[in-house]
Amino acid sequence: MAAYTTRAENIMRRIEALAAISDDSQGVTRTFGTPAFLAGSALVRSWLEAAGLATRIDGIGNVRGRLASPHPAAKTFVIASHIDTVVNAGKFDGPLGVLLGLDLLEQLVSQQAELPFHIELIAFSDEEGCRFHTTYLGSKVVTGAFDNSLLQKPDAAGITLADALTTMGADAQQLVYDAIPANEWLGYFEAHIEQGPVLYERNIPVALVTAIAGQQRVELVFGGMAGHAGTVPMGMRQDALCCAAEVVLAVEEFGREHQQELVATVGKLDIRHAASNVIPGQVVCTLDLRSADAARLAWAYQELQTQAQAIAHQRNITLAWNLVQQTTPVTCDAGLNTLLAHAIADSGYPVVPLVSGAGHDTVPVSAIAPATMLFVRCYKGISHNPLENVELPDLAAALRVAERFLSKLITHHS
Amino acid sequence: MAAYTTRAENIMRRIEALAAISDDSQGVTRTFGTPAFLAGSALVRSWLEAAGLATRIDGIGNVRGRLASPHPAAKTFVIASHIDTVVNAGKFDGPLGVLLGLDLLEQLVSQQAELPFHIELIAFSDEEGCRFHTTYLGSKVVTGAFDNSLLQKPDAAGITLADALTTMGADAQQLVYDAIPANEWLGYFEAHIEQGPVLYERNIPVALVTAIAGQQRVELVFGGMAGHAGTVPMGMRQDALCCAAEVVLAVEEFGREHQQELVATVGKLDIRHAASNVIPGQVVCTLDLRSADAARLAWAYQELQTQAQAIAHQRNITLAWNLVQQTTPVTCDAGLNTLLAHAIADSGYPVVPLVSGAGHDTVPVSAIAPATMLFVRCYKGISHNPLENVELPDLAAALRVAERFLSKLITHHS
Repeated sequence: MAAYTTRAENIMRRIEALAAISDDSQGVTRTFGTPAFLAGSALVRSWLEAAGLATRIDGIGNVRGRLASPHPAAKTFVIASHIDTVVNAGKFDGPLGVLLGLDLLEQLVSQQAELPFHIELIAFSDEEGCRFHTTYLGSKVVTGAFDNSLLQKPDAAGITLADALTTMGADAQQLVYDAIPANEWLGYFEAHIEQGPVLYERNIPVALVTAIAGQQRVELVFGGMAGHAGTVPMGMRQDALCCAAEVVLAVEEFGREHQQELVATVGKLDIRHAASNVIPGQVVCTLDLRSADAARLAWAYQELQTQAQAIAHQRNITLAWNLVQQTTPVTCDAGLNTLLAHAIADSGYPVVPLVSGAGHDTVPVSAIAPATMLFVRCYKGISHNPLENVELPDLAAALRVAERFLSKLITHHS
Repeated sequence: MAAYTTRAENIMRRIEALAAISDDSQGVTRTFGTPAFLAGSALVRSWLEAAGLATRIDGIGNVRGRLASPHPAAKTFVIASHIDTVVNAGKFDGPLGVLLGLDLLEQLVSQQAELPFHIELIAFSDEEGCRFHTTYLGSKVVTGAFDNSLLQKPDAAGITLADALTTMGADAQQLVYDAIPANEWLGYFEAHIEQGPVLYERNIPVALVTAIAGQQRVELVFGGMAGHAGTVPMGMRQDALCCAAEVVLAVEEFGREHQQELVATVGKLDIRHAASNVIPGQVVCTLDLRSADAARLAWAYQELQTQAQAIAHQRNITLAWNLVQQTTPVTCDAGLNTLLAHAIADSGYPVVPLVSGAGHDTVPVSAIAPATMLFVRCYKGISHNPLENVELPDLAAALRVAERFLSKLITHHS
């Protein structure tokens, strides 16, 4: 284990070095295409170069390093995560997976191993989607799923994605050539912090990701009757907030009853023309519903809509239920998951299967190739926050498991 | 009744004429001391002057018209309401009481009645308190309760009340001489729209006000743990919004159980750093609690605090309970109320005793003199809104009742 600890310390130093590159002095901010983002990309590329990989930065800004197999019919196995961040982010969300992957490749290079498949290490340029309010720009280019109409999409300053790419020195016309063709994919592996508290609470360093939850995002608009808080008797009120509160608690209760298979959250709630002495007349809130099971997700959506409408009807409150966004659940590859589960067990850790409630590049990749993910425990499950933290022993454990997984994969294909 | 209808039409024309004077073109806006406010005051004073009253504008901008009694020991009976408005107000809140009072005095003048007491008609300059976030500037000067330290209070533009008074041509040094001494007060009468839906729902034109509710205003701060809406299992959450929602419903239920004696409202609710995909970590909301019974108000305050703390404790959520403001209940004068109840009954209307949940100039006046109020039905109880409306027959009914009340008062003191 001492060797893994030493290697984990090296990964941690690189994570710290990358985190020191930020567009602002508080926390870490490297959103897509900013000066800090470009400086971070250059640093990562220099490490890949020094490791002896064939490196390049592709048309969407992904940093790519390739370790080739001598076999003429070899396919490509991708190890990746992202190096863009949200605003005021932590250090680990993204970089951990890239730099853990780099360490794995450094070992293979130093062993001069003859690979049965090519390995490409990719630092995706845009997973968070903060700047252009997009999803997975980097991995969509690599999987050939990039939508060219996004090139005209402006950021908050009015700069289009096409202009941003030009500024970055990239060529939007070349994006189509940056995809790995479908028949050349062998598979995909990503290590990532859990961004949830399960491993922290259960005191286990890593988990196997079985699926990425699908999501329904709904806007609910409750219409009651505003009135003077002092003069309208309780029995004559149509209080939109009280109605919304009942729905918030119904959502919570429903989520608790079905907590093995879904999560349900009201994250935003706004009272229109709110004042302390005015009975709320209109309330707008959100509902975020996620499950790894598409059928259960659809059922839960219907069930909650029915419950909310019944509550509103009973209170003589109007309710508009507007579906804002939906994504379908994605299942990780059974074959790769079996290898990863064995790697975890062989390393001496309990095999904890987890559903990822957050989205990852695994979502677009799994549409074209077998994919799996390894989650790493993070402090209290906190992410997207400067408090985000991973302990060194957990990083070492993740490295040990990932190396064993890769070793099994090589053996399997040799 | 035809005479009252004709007189009500005249009052209605004056209400419309005053409403046409506004600082903005939408709705009615005449907050204290603005150009529209001063123009409105001048118009009201011209009507009082034309009616044959001895008029003046006092140091705080109240328009005052006096009809004197020949008796040497005569006291003063005040008929009043206010002519300042909130922003984007209706036409009736305030002006109705002033212009109904003016009509009553016009009748007395035309009858050349010999009065057993002086009658002073006052259009208070500041009841809404919008500009300086104060309460009852106008009536506090008349009752001698004005707090001179308020003169240094700035409005949103940084103009102090003293500077505003100077601009209005008033002299802050003279305020003390504008009070009616305590021993000279005979009583106080104010007609005002209900600002609530009880008369509208019960289809009755007027009501007798028995008390002005006291109020406790509380800020509640719920502290939970923010987290990713997709990754934190339901069982591991400390959702501040769910806790606040439970308290909102407890407040509503408590209010309904005790609806004969109080109202309880959560009017504002803000989630800190809200996002649809983030579990709410902190929620701040208000509680507005009102009752005409001081003991019940204090009891309800304690009871709700206990309930809210228990809910928060059970959910492992911190709760800060901060008292922001409190006013004690005010009771209308029993003697004047008896006269007013007889006037209502003699006019053929059911006597509906109501507690005013909103504050009125009656609050400071009742500290120094016997006071009563007559509520007039308004459309759906809507006020502080351009939709505020009073039907002509209801205005005529209020005029009839008020005239009968004044007649009984004159007889009583003759």
